Amino acid sequence: MVNPNAAMIVIGDEILSGRTQDANTFHLAQELTRVGIDLKEVRVVSDDHGEISGAVNVLRGKFTHVFTSGGIGPTHDDITADSIAAAFGVSIDVRDDARAMLATNYENGEADLTEARLRMARIPKGAKLINNPISKAPGFSLENVHVMAGVPTIFVVMLENLLPTLSGGQPMLSETIRMDSPESEIAGPLAKIATDFPELSIGSYPFSMYGKYGTNIVIRGTSQQLIASASHAVALAFEVLTK
Amino acid sequence: MVNPNAAMIVIGDEILSGRTQDANTFHLAQELTRVGIDLKEVRVVSDDHGEISGAVNVLRGKFTHVFTSGGIGPTHDDITADSIAAAFGVSIDVRDDARAMLATNYENGEADLTEARLRMARIPKGAKLINNPISKAPGFSLENVHVMAGVPTIFVVMLENLLPTLSGGQPMLSETIRMDSPESEIAGPLAKIATDFPELSIGSYPFSMYGKYGTNIVIRGTSQQLIASASHAVALAFEVLTK
Repeated sequence: MVNPNAAMIVIGDEILSGRTQDANTFHLAQELTRVGIDLKEVRVVSDDHGEISGAVNVLRGKFTHVFTSGGIGPTHDDITADSIAAAFGVSIDVRDDARAMLATNYENGEADLTEARLRMARIPKGAKLINNPISKAPGFSLENVHVMAGVPTIFVVMLENLLPTLSGGQPMLSETIRMDSPESEIAGPLAKIATDFPELSIGSYPFSMYGKYGTNIVIRGTSQQLIASASHAVALAFEVLTK
Repeated sequence: MVNPNAAMIVIGDEILSGRTQDANTFHLAQELTRVGIDLKEVRVVSDDHGEISGAVNVLRGKFTHVFTSGGIGPTHDDITADSIAAAFGVSIDVRDDARAMLATNYENGEADLTEARLRMARIPKGAKLINNPISKAPGFSLENVHVMAGVPTIFVVMLENLLPTLSGGQPMLSETIRMDSPESEIAGPLAKIATDFPELSIGSYPFSMYGKYGTNIVIRGTSQQLIASASHAVALAFEVLTK
């Protein structure tokens, strides 16, 4: 069985200008690994209609799921929902259920829904809402595109509500082996092991600590048994090497 | 004058699997803003030849500069240099100057350059080297594509060596105004100000602190005078609003 796969689109000038460090990709990557959806690509695009809808249309055709983060607030630079509607060629308008959810966030309910706030209840036709227990303005899924907030605390709860509704695959498992040798000393034997286990992804990540170089070897795959075999092969190879 | 622009390509399965949080994009974004190069797009792609060269070819045609991070070490999963050479259709081989630099990293110099280590001296034909005072394996620039290490400390020094060789533009300036009002209350007047200052980028970023909602308004542009005018307009608008 091949796992479903996914892309992430982070929307926001504040990430590209270096004002803010994106935290949502890291969280999403960990959660998708946990449920067996393989994250294959991430794009960060600016608050620009054409850039957002262009990226959505390329990626929704290429991957099982597309997750987006950012640009669904009440201000003029929040253009994600409109860009998604345009990408799909569907209409967008204030929707009653989204409006009702949103109203629960304000003291006087519906009466407090100003024009700006109502922007957050504009949902492309055919979308399913994603619940937002924090600030009540919902995200939405349109076919395989899942549109969530950029504020990390809200992104986290929206994803928590969304993920159980998606079909996952086999969770990606991994084992890390820490070597006190620089990458260049283990590269040869490691390449052979990677060839011997084509079903696994075997990566090596150098680090330095207290002035000494080391390498973390990370073996990833969906079969615990294969990972154990590869891990054993690594142990054997480097006992030989350090003799 | 229009500033030069740029894209970043982060190469690495370890980012997509959530094992590691990318730090290089945030650093690059801040440095480019400082020197007046506008970062317009970021892509994270997997350790896959076709994905890397595909992204390079799309983005090098679209932007003044493309910066890459990751995949230039000595192991089998370090395929960035080969993928870049393939993207440009040029040959790649061990180059004498890169080999000499690399040799300075080892006790016995050239004698310690194993096959795996020599992989780090493979440079696409026509590239200029980027100095790496830390682990000596150089990065390189091929036309407008600048290939650097993924290890953050090395990425930082490579970028420090590279940036002064690139033509910058007018540094992007910004002013942040903190409002103790939620975004939805300032959206209307703010949209009008954004329309009045088309040369500036005016963003609003909600936050919550001690259970109260607030908004940072960020005004960005290259003219300090225009930013000051917009900032004054914001002050005027919200004195009116809070009356």
